[in-house]
Amino acid sequence: MRSIDEITITDAALDQMSTTTNPRLKEIMEVAVRHLHAFAREASLTPEEWLAGISFVTAVGQACTPYRQEFILLSDTLGLSTLVNCLHDKRSIENGTKTSLLGPFYRQDAPQFNLGDCIGSDPGGQEIGVYGRITDIAGKPIPHASIQIWQTDDDGMYDLQKQDPSMMDFRGCFNADAEGGFHIRTVRPLGYLIPLDGPVGDMIRAQRRHGFRPAHIHFLIGAPGYRELVTALYVNPDSHMDSDVVFGSTASLVVETRTDDSNSPFPGLPTIHFDFSLAKAAVEDTSGRVGADPAQILARSH
Amino acid sequence: MRSIDEITITDAALDQMSTTTNPRLKEIMEVAVRHLHAFAREASLTPEEWLAGISFVTAVGQACTPYRQEFILLSDTLGLSTLVNCLHDKRSIENGTKTSLLGPFYRQDAPQFNLGDCIGSDPGGQEIGVYGRITDIAGKPIPHASIQIWQTDDDGMYDLQKQDPSMMDFRGCFNADAEGGFHIRTVRPLGYLIPLDGPVGDMIRAQRRHGFRPAHIHFLIGAPGYRELVTALYVNPDSHMDSDVVFGSTASLVVETRTDDSNSPFPGLPTIHFDFSLAKAAVEDTSGRVGADPAQILARSH
Repeated sequence: MRSIDEITITDAALDQMSTTTNPRLKEIMEVAVRHLHAFAREASLTPEEWLAGISFVTAVGQACTPYRQEFILLSDTLGLSTLVNCLHDKRSIENGTKTSLLGPFYRQDAPQFNLGDCIGSDPGGQEIGVYGRITDIAGKPIPHASIQIWQTDDDGMYDLQKQDPSMMDFRGCFNADAEGGFHIRTVRPLGYLIPLDGPVGDMIRAQRRHGFRPAHIHFLIGAPGYRELVTALYVNPDSHMDSDVVFGSTASLVVETRTDDSNSPFPGLPTIHFDFSLAKAAVEDTSGRVGADPAQILARSH
Repeated sequence: MRSIDEITITDAALDQMSTTTNPRLKEIMEVAVRHLHAFAREASLTPEEWLAGISFVTAVGQACTPYRQEFILLSDTLGLSTLVNCLHDKRSIENGTKTSLLGPFYRQDAPQFNLGDCIGSDPGGQEIGVYGRITDIAGKPIPHASIQIWQTDDDGMYDLQKQDPSMMDFRGCFNADAEGGFHIRTVRPLGYLIPLDGPVGDMIRAQRRHGFRPAHIHFLIGAPGYRELVTALYVNPDSHMDSDVVFGSTASLVVETRTDDSNSPFPGLPTIHFDFSLAKAAVEDTSGRVGADPAQILARSH
């Protein structure tokens, strides 16, 4: 009969999981259990601390609804989501525009718009233009690429956070033109506090973090033969540009609005100009959507 | 403006968490984030795998109810709970009886019994006796120690798994006598499958594990001046004694029933004899309850 101690428990667990049929699941769980155990040993976790952790992840799971994904928020605020994005970019056979967080506010079935349209029902006084080109990494235009955009309104809220979260606003799908060009109207996005009324908010407060994301616009861009690009543009000036609570902002994705851009298709409007470059798809490429529709995740969970 | 990659993200996250007020929380979260990130890098986690993980932990959280704690079950089946128990024993100033899993079926407010009573409403044909002594590590009796016991009935089910989970059965509280002695009647516990109808069950099946715990009786023993002992006795013969799905069984806690024990206070009944030794409490001692009443955890979570 074996004797289990704080060292032999790890091999006992790995041994029992060694019959896993799927080799990739086996590999991931082995690495996960080794690091989980190493964490507990290194922190010398007490039963009370363990219980506090169980209570915390239970609360995170119970806070998830069809309109809210608290576990993605936790992953985002621990830097895990951005890390997975960086690993995704590293596996690419070409270096295109960097991936950034899909975040918890992505939704499927956003409405279709034409180039030049405004994606918000009420652009108010903060209307801006966004234009640019979708190209390959050599700068060759990719015609008719699909572009999905979502962002906060000029109150700093996503539609999912509104009184009727089933309504869609400030999100939409476009297609680039034959030369890869796109131009759309929207409002200047606002930086905002991530939702802090759940268990992740308790963590952020205990860590004395400010909880803000810098202003940004999400993009999901796809074209046949290219890697799907999930990214965001971060709009300066923003005092939290270098301390994004979910670590999405990075130098190459920071943009400014200009009113003196003579190439802008929106004369007079503050305009963001950004050209996206897509890497060629490889056979082994997987989706870059670090995040997903909360309702879909809940549906998968049951 | 900083640039974030798969390496610098870890320091960015630790830097943002460095303002944490509570030094122990800060330490635990630092170790947790380093291992979480190292796990993702080492596994080269893809966005799809990350999403599968998010869906899994969401399902685990949503499966928790006042009568079920799926996150404890996950911790148990990954060997984390037993590891935390081993670390707890290692921090003790004396080596008493080893800690074992509290498990997800512990409940507060179990009924009080007298020595010699049977803790089950229907002992059926499998009645056994359990007796022994509560002592310090030198073998000196500890008078009137409190003893709480819980186990499966002779169908291999806990009361919490029954049609009316609010009913309590096969659990009870006793006090040892003035010489530290105790003797109670119960039924021979049965080995059983952990609950496999939730997301942890999906994991166990994907890992091709048998899912069984060997037969055991839980004990929670306390006395002023001594460390609270949470443990279990594992009853041979049991074909899963060396492959407990939650890694609780260990050589020093394995027992047998005997019918030829002339010291047994239950002549004729198969009897387990086990003496428990409690370590002295240290000022810095914390609870050894790796586990808790599911309803209480849910209450703490909100």
